[in-house]
Amino acid sequence: MARTQGSHSDITGPRIQDAALRLFAQHGFAAVSMRQIAGEVGVQAGALYNYTPDKQSLLFGLMHRHMDELLTARAGQWGGDALSRLRDFVSFHIRFHLDRPDEVFIAYMELRNLTPENFATIEALRRRYEDDLEAILRAGVSEGAFDVPDTKIATLAVIAMLNGVNTWYRAGGRLSLDQVEGIYWDMVRKAVAA
Amino acid sequence: MARTQGSHSDITGPRIQDAALRLFAQHGFAAVSMRQIAGEVGVQAGALYNYTPDKQSLLFGLMHRHMDELLTARAGQWGGDALSRLRDFVSFHIRFHLDRPDEVFIAYMELRNLTPENFATIEALRRRYEDDLEAILRAGVSEGAFDVPDTKIATLAVIAMLNGVNTWYRAGGRLSLDQVEGIYWDMVRKAVAA
Repeated sequence: MARTQGSHSDITGPRIQDAALRLFAQHGFAAVSMRQIAGEVGVQAGALYNYTPDKQSLLFGLMHRHMDELLTARAGQWGGDALSRLRDFVSFHIRFHLDRPDEVFIAYMELRNLTPENFATIEALRRRYEDDLEAILRAGVSEGAFDVPDTKIATLAVIAMLNGVNTWYRAGGRLSLDQVEGIYWDMVRKAVAA
Repeated sequence: MARTQGSHSDITGPRIQDAALRLFAQHGFAAVSMRQIAGEVGVQAGALYNYTPDKQSLLFGLMHRHMDELLTARAGQWGGDALSRLRDFVSFHIRFHLDRPDEVFIAYMELRNLTPENFATIEALRRRYEDDLEAILRAGVSEGAFDVPDTKIATLAVIAMLNGVNTWYRAGGRLSLDQVEGIYWDMVRKAVAA
């Protein structure tokens, strides 16, 4: 029995998360009911509560998973001087987020719907990601390669600029992903240059 | 009778718009009912339909008003060389949007909830605003002051970077608005410099 439940969880848990992600991104967290999510997965609404206590836990779980994947994917990318590390960061950030439009949309838009404790947890993870970039900018200032009057603000400015790619880039459009990356890298490099 | 209705419209119309703006920004368009908006204004739900045919019209009206105010405020700011015009744009953009956090949030988040025709109208207005900045970047390239490989992408990148201020700036925080403006101007200026 426990075995069967475990298998169920393995299959249905991710399907519930994927359905919630899609529905939250399309309609907004507040407009989506547990019943709708259950319908999307093809289970009874009551069955959903075997897997998740409530909608808040689903939202938090989605945001937490997104931040975990982001931090895991970045872990260990520390080689080279500040300029090459910055280039790696720009490339990584654009490609990681373009692959996850729904997660990115929710990560920004639904922060308002997290409970204060959940919000604090997600913010701490996001801060860790920002600290990663800020450490690169600080290193570049120490090396004399960068001139950045405020590394915290520069971190937020660079991330905001790169996040913008998600709002307009479509595969198969006027520019290839390599071209887009090159253009953004050029702007970021110049923006922080000494 | 017509006179009375007109006066009512003048007073209640803006109050309905303000209430809808607040509620949409807080809960999301899809989660807010006409009944809730009426309650916020202090009128019967039925009375709301004297002023607006439906929730879609309210959302479209809010976004349209925001874009009209933006374009009107920018109109005629065309003096000087490209560098000084760019500086004016950066200053204008940061200050205009910081004053309107709810409008900015909705302008980005609720595009998905506009009908296709309404979406096209808002997009055309936004394009006009972007064209304003792109014209400055083009002029700077012609003057030899800027080196921007793709003025369209640079336009979107600069606007995204500046929009980021809304997500973190709080009056009375570590930095004054003048300091924030100075830091962003420094980064934008360098990012597009020849």
